[in-house]
Amino acid sequence: MKALVIHGPHDLRLEERPVAPLQAHEVAVRIGAGGICGSDLHYFHNGGFGAVRLKEPMILGHEIAGTVERVGDAVSSVRPGDRVAVNPSRPCGACRYCLEGRQNHCLNMRFYGSAMPFPHIQGAFREILVCDAVQAHTVGDQISLGEAAFCEPLAVCLHAARRAGPLLGRRVLVTGCGPIGALCVLAAHAAGAAEIVATDIADATLAVVTKLGVAKTLNTAADPEALKPYEADKGAFDVMFEASGNMKALTGAFAALRPQGVIVQVGTGGDFTLPISVLVAKEFELRGTFRFHEEFSTAVAMISSRRIDVRPLLTATLPMDRAVDAFHLASDRSRAMKVQIGF
Amino acid sequence: MKALVIHGPHDLRLEERPVAPLQAHEVAVRIGAGGICGSDLHYFHNGGFGAVRLKEPMILGHEIAGTVERVGDAVSSVRPGDRVAVNPSRPCGACRYCLEGRQNHCLNMRFYGSAMPFPHIQGAFREILVCDAVQAHTVGDQISLGEAAFCEPLAVCLHAARRAGPLLGRRVLVTGCGPIGALCVLAAHAAGAAEIVATDIADATLAVVTKLGVAKTLNTAADPEALKPYEADKGAFDVMFEASGNMKALTGAFAALRPQGVIVQVGTGGDFTLPISVLVAKEFELRGTFRFHEEFSTAVAMISSRRIDVRPLLTATLPMDRAVDAFHLASDRSRAMKVQIGF
Amino acid sequence: MKALVIHGPHDLRLEERPVAPLQAHEVAVRIGAGGICGSDLHYFHNGGFGAVRLKEPMILGHEIAGTVERVGDAVSSVRPGDRVAVNPSRPCGACRYCLEGRQNHCLNMRFYGSAMPFPHIQGAFREILVCDAVQAHTVGDQISLGEAAFCEPLAVCLHAARRAGPLLGRRVLVTGCGPIGALCVLAAHAAGAAEIVATDIADATLAVVTKLGVAKTLNTAADPEALKPYEADKGAFDVMFEASGNMKALTGAFAALRPQGVIVQVGTGGDFTLPISVLVAKEFELRGTFRFHEEFSTAVAMISSRRIDVRPLLTATLPMDRAVDAFHLASDRSRAMKVQIGF
Amino acid sequence: MKALVIHGPHDLRLEERPVAPLQAHEVAVRIGAGGICGSDLHYFHNGGFGAVRLKEPMILGHEIAGTVERVGDAVSSVRPGDRVAVNPSRPCGACRYCLEGRQNHCLNMRFYGSAMPFPHIQGAFREILVCDAVQAHTVGDQISLGEAAFCEPLAVCLHAARRAGPLLGRRVLVTGCGPIGALCVLAAHAAGAAEIVATDIADATLAVVTKLGVAKTLNTAADPEALKPYEADKGAFDVMFEASGNMKALTGAFAALRPQGVIVQVGTGGDFTLPISVLVAKEFELRGTFRFHEEFSTAVAMISSRRIDVRPLLTATLPMDRAVDAFHLASDRSRAMKVQIGF
Repeated sequence: MKALVIHGPHDLRLEERPVAPLQAHEVAVRIGAGGICGSDLHYFHNGGFGAVRLKEPMILGHEIAGTVERVGDAVSSVRPGDRVAVNPSRPCGACRYCLEGRQNHCLNMRFYGSAMPFPHIQGAFREILVCDAVQAHTVGDQISLGEAAFCEPLAVCLHAARRAGPLLGRRVLVTGCGPIGALCVLAAHAAGAAEIVATDIADATLAVVTKLGVAKTLNTAADPEALKPYEADKGAFDVMFEASGNMKALTGAFAALRPQGVIVQVGTGGDFTLPISVLVAKEFELRGTFRFHEEFSTAVAMISSRRIDVRPLLTATLPMDRAVDAFHLASDRSRAMKVQIGF
Repeated sequence: MKALVIHGPHDLRLEERPVAPLQAHEVAVRIGAGGICGSDLHYFHNGGFGAVRLKEPMILGHEIAGTVERVGDAVSSVRPGDRVAVNPSRPCGACRYCLEGRQNHCLNMRFYGSAMPFPHIQGAFREILVCDAVQAHTVGDQISLGEAAFCEPLAVCLHAARRAGPLLGRRVLVTGCGPIGALCVLAAHAAGAAEIVATDIADATLAVVTKLGVAKTLNTAADPEALKPYEADKGAFDVMFEASGNMKALTGAFAALRPQGVIVQVGTGGDFTLPISVLVAKEFELRGTFRFHEEFSTAVAMISSRRIDVRPLLTATLPMDRAVDAFHLASDRSRAMKVQIGF
Repeated sequence: MKALVIHGPHDLRLEERPVAPLQAHEVAVRIGAGGICGSDLHYFHNGGFGAVRLKEPMILGHEIAGTVERVGDAVSSVRPGDRVAVNPSRPCGACRYCLEGRQNHCLNMRFYGSAMPFPHIQGAFREILVCDAVQAHTVGDQISLGEAAFCEPLAVCLHAARRAGPLLGRRVLVTGCGPIGALCVLAAHAAGAAEIVATDIADATLAVVTKLGVAKTLNTAADPEALKPYEADKGAFDVMFEASGNMKALTGAFAALRPQGVIVQVGTGGDFTLPISVLVAKEFELRGTFRFHEEFSTAVAMISSRRIDVRPLLTATLPMDRAVDAFHLASDRSRAMKVQIGF
Repeated sequence: MKALVIHGPHDLRLEERPVAPLQAHEVAVRIGAGGICGSDLHYFHNGGFGAVRLKEPMILGHEIAGTVERVGDAVSSVRPGDRVAVNPSRPCGACRYCLEGRQNHCLNMRFYGSAMPFPHIQGAFREILVCDAVQAHTVGDQISLGEAAFCEPLAVCLHAARRAGPLLGRRVLVTGCGPIGALCVLAAHAAGAAEIVATDIADATLAVVTKLGVAKTLNTAADPEALKPYEADKGAFDVMFEASGNMKALTGAFAALRPQGVIVQVGTGGDFTLPISVLVAKEFELRGTFRFHEEFSTAVAMISSRRIDVRPLLTATLPMDRAVDAFHLASDRSRAMKVQIGF
């Protein structure tokens, strides 16, 4: 079986790996599509991010979907031939946080393609993935495996939307329109936001979001005053999703966010310098959001029914042996939203 | 009537001012005690803080209590001779935020002793204050006017406690043990926190808080590792009140705050540089808190019954003509917690 | 000007009434469509409901839309010719509840067409309605006045959805599929419910909801065991909207509602007898919901954009002089969902 | 080892039972005190309650404390000689609800002394109890085992207080002043309630609560109008704990509970008939509360420090061989609040 293994910055190799033996509660999935995520790009370009560093070769990938090939003796939830989105999150189910329903903070998490623990958790960009049956969620007949591979990033954004509290009737700002920002737009719309404004600094990116038809888009590089009309009376937006990981996107929106407004920080980055007196005086709530748990199955339902239609976000699908090209394309915001690899 | 007027940095004068005429719905209160707040000190030392700058002479003061001297024709809630805490917050009652129950964000707020609007809102460090009857809250017989003058800062901290969400059974960290931090300790205790740890960098300050008998105190300057024991399993504290306005107090506690922990930022300062990736990955909620509204009457009840006993926090009371000395004493954390002026 | 006046049970008359003089902040609206609500039917059939009884003739109606004819001197928000939905809710803006943002509990509410206070608050089924300009919300160009007249009942249901807490990804049961139940289905869908099941005892009613395409429908009269499949593992539904006002609809769903499930009681009726031990042991939350406030403008936005498309719910529109027929039709669940009167 | 076994109504026997073998993770506790709970009384008088019926002999009891006698090989949390309160709740830690942090709704709960499942879960009124070490919580040195045996019912009431939402500064009504009502009074006080009013129909019971010094008490049998002064402006109380299990206590307080008020139903009973139109129009939230989970350790902390002092609630402690007398005494509200058995 072939797998995409990162050895260090810009050293991504297609290598042969053995297929794991199949346990009774497991299934073997022939992967059909794998989306390249921002963290994959960080491993590819920089060998990690923040304190997370590659210390051994690691198979990348955690946005995956495929077709069930074999099932273990104890498995009844899926059958060979079923098309599934695979949940890459594997909490232990026994630690303090799992028993509080906060599985995304599991003390023993084994999330695919993560160099956070050592040995690293090998990822899912491979031809055959053997996983627990509960990770494999059957998707709707009419959607493609490419769409199904969006379940993971959509789950991230549905979790972000949950972190925001009720969105029905709210005015929402999304800063940063990469794949996560765009999916936040779709998640906020699905949750009933009355008005969505999305900003970015790249016209190509904004054009994709404009096509979604549910948000007004603004280029804050071209027009630094673009949010001005939303600043009257201490600010118009009830909720903000910061999906750029850029400090200026966050602080630049403070004047447009109303008192007691909620900021869900989805994007991550290095250090952010904030005017704390504004956060205090306007009683903002700045909430981090990290991965997901139960939202994966919601994402499967929403994508399967195309109630959230992710197709406009897929830029291109490249075959496995052009993976390096795929990573370069995915890194170019002027050309790409989401890039997937076909296995 | 004499009043304490700030003209510029270190230019505090005792000046003669006329007593305002008494309207039907108003009361005239002979002020007995006035607490010096951090913002008063900022005006005294720096002529303001952040963007807020003195542009004209302004009477200082907003932590006040006194005795009703006269009441307007339409007033029945208090009578001459009543001892009252005076609420310095005067929202308009008609703007968008007032009609949402968010009076502390009133678009037309007239808070005593504030240079935020221009003309400035004159303060309450004066012999006779004429105010609306609804601002005057009768206090319990057994407490002193000095205790009653704590109602305002306690209201700030009760509002901060409300912002934290339910505290019953929670493990709470308070960073910064000045008057606001100390009152946050008392508010968290009153709200049912199971365990409170309070930190500061000054032993004198910590000694006062230790005497309150409801919190463990730690000097994080003397022992930078003091919070280490609380860092296991991703952190022990459910809730943190940051009352120092010091960035390092905030970020230094990140490792001891559990995932989805709530930080109530009470202290304010300049720019704070935060490791945003930690806030994101641990899903912290950083919430500003600003002033109060309905909590003023709760503070009156809590202090009147001595359910919250603020007496250990009062360092000294100086007469009006020694106001400058009082301001210098209040500025010296090695000697003073709360300093009041007697009128 | 003609108006529809109820004098007592089954005594509905078309009468001449004077047009009120136009104040500076008011507008005169030529009413185009008025929906008949359950409370209108109660006045028509029984002269009231519960303790609310007709004590004088009263113009009925509060679900109305029309065209602005004249505007007062101080009005700039709308202009003659604008098509508007009229908000029938008129809180005082000054009482305890208004200043808490709970305007639907205003101590001095003057809601159109209500016999709750005496003198009664005259309603809006009339040719010309003079109202405050803030009550008149301009609607989208492409929708009809009939659709616009749904803003009021939709606002009721959006408020009910708010009362439910976050619905994104939730499994929702709606019991009772009259106009309010059907709009609850649409509101829950708009708020992101992952799955909606709607029940009623009338096939005709269920057929209308089925056509909405967002809920599975079940006839619990035809099949009393219809909810059985949802009862495993202590129940499947996270949230329930009880819109029938029928006690058995509520208690019959207890087994299908999961522990800590939320029940929003929208329908009202006489006395309900509940197995309190089940509510206690499963820790249900039974929440009343009453009218709306800020949700009116959300309803205007949702209907104006047809993001919530109410057209399938409109059974018929009868002219003013056939109002009695309209009331009889509206009372017949086998034939009618929502019936409107054209003015 | 002797144990108190209920065989049927009024058939309570002291019988010899074997001590269970000690596993590595277990401890053997010599029980010192066991409180008689309302459910114990139901088994004693009626052989059960509602659908829960005795089908085989069952050891009663779940409010227990004692001294550790032996510990298993793998136990380090407690040592022989430690005085402990024993948590009678044993969720499975693996079902759907446990993994949501809702352990009190565990699908496989084994709560001591419960006839809900069959075979019944044997209780803890016995000389030696072998239990899992995590159930044994060390208590403070200065408190008695009798006080420690209050941890279980206090945990029930702390959970009820959590269900109420934030109580800081709230006005609270408690109806029913048996042991659970009295502990709700103490829990609400500990959580910062600004004002507590407690009602009952028995003077003896009210006298005990009056002595707690934190609530005003009213006899609603002696004065059916006792709550009248709280009914102005749609009601004074923000939160109500209904601890009598009596329908009239609940509905009799509706007029005194403000709009959007929260009712926590702690007491249970048969069918309750409610004026649903009032619940709807005032938007009450009627929330069930059932047992506890994490609140047990909070109860241990609160009782150990006597921050919640339960001593005034203990009427008498009778020896094991007078258990039947103890049950009769506990059933007599004119003489008894909490009765315990000494082992």
